[in-house]
Amino acid sequence: MISRSEVEQIVRKIVVARLANNGKGPAPTLAVHASARHMHVSRKDLDVLFGPGYELTVERPLYQPGNYAAKELVTLIGPKSRLISNLRILGPIRDRSQIELAFTDAISLGLENVPIRLSGDIDGSAGAFVMGPKGMVELQEGVIRAAIHVHMNPAEAAYDGVKHRDFMKLRVGGDAGVTFNKVHVRVDPTVRLNVHMDTDEANACGLHLAKEFELFK
Amino acid sequence: MISRSEVEQIVRKIVVARLANNGKGPAPTLAVHASARHMHVSRKDLDVLFGPGYELTVERPLYQPGNYAAKELVTLIGPKSRLISNLRILGPIRDRSQIELAFTDAISLGLENVPIRLSGDIDGSAGAFVMGPKGMVELQEGVIRAAIHVHMNPAEAAYDGVKHRDFMKLRVGGDAGVTFNKVHVRVDPTVRLNVHMDTDEANACGLHLAKEFELFK
Repeated sequence: MISRSEVEQIVRKIVVARLANNGKGPAPTLAVHASARHMHVSRKDLDVLFGPGYELTVERPLYQPGNYAAKELVTLIGPKSRLISNLRILGPIRDRSQIELAFTDAISLGLENVPIRLSGDIDGSAGAFVMGPKGMVELQEGVIRAAIHVHMNPAEAAYDGVKHRDFMKLRVGGDAGVTFNKVHVRVDPTVRLNVHMDTDEANACGLHLAKEFELFK
Repeated sequence: MISRSEVEQIVRKIVVARLANNGKGPAPTLAVHASARHMHVSRKDLDVLFGPGYELTVERPLYQPGNYAAKELVTLIGPKSRLISNLRILGPIRDRSQIELAFTDAISLGLENVPIRLSGDIDGSAGAFVMGPKGMVELQEGVIRAAIHVHMNPAEAAYDGVKHRDFMKLRVGGDAGVTFNKVHVRVDPTVRLNVHMDTDEANACGLHLAKEFELFK
């Protein structure tokens, strides 16, 4: 974590550089990615699921520095004894366990009360059972459908004239033609410009076919 | 089918009535529905799947007059021997068989080349095998992801100032907040105002939670 004054200094540098360039700095490269269903796991729950002191192993790094898809998979059990097998854990471990599902997943699992939330905002969200090779965890809450969001660092936020917790819109061209009107802006100095949507949103807008993206206020 | 001149006459009546009312006629009621994956079947293919001369039986009528979900189910077999069981047939029978899948369905089936098309526009679309209780049909083409569309009768089209083959936009409010920018307008005197989207689109916009809809040019 870097301090607020450091952040402000970085932003100021970028803004000054842009002004010196008649405001025509190059637009940051926008990556738009679909996140398939996954789990973030707490230390305590990982101990139960995979055994005391177990450490996640990296399957592949993700676009955001420090994040990775782990080799570890769990089984998610819904209220009607329906299962989602091979639910992948994303690392690193977090303070609280959290499961992100698309509504299609939640419906197939029989979970009818999954709210749309930002990652980490899980109070009062849906519960589920999670089964690992060494044990079972009951999550009283933590199952959400992740709200579409854009990660940006302070320089990228300054470029677009937005700040942390603002909303932007993402227009996806192509045969489907969808605009997401509530893209949550998440500013953090450690990230790079990247929209995360879930698989329902990706399939609705035909992300695998789309070539035209516009992120705007 | 009613004639063009009859249609024009109906439209004129409505327009005149609206003008007499200072243009403030009541807005037609908009129904927004999700269509789950389904099949439309030709006479010839129904003969193979369910036996010569077989007739579909009505499970429940659909919102559009004359259309119904049939009791009959088939199995769809994709190129990697993956299955979708219990694919429902919608009646009545059509000139050509057609299967409408969400991209989520197509991807789970291993079908990677399913185009976004209007119903009936299936030349060069994806193929699949379909299995019924009496036989198997190979569709060389006919598998599409249905483009989002709005059915309207001429009076409803006149109210919105649009015509057959135009595009409109549908904004869905709520936590997701999605605008569909390419809603195909389908004008037909036998229908009532009704947007059809697929399950990916419905889940992306949180249709089951949404209370606010705006259809506009």
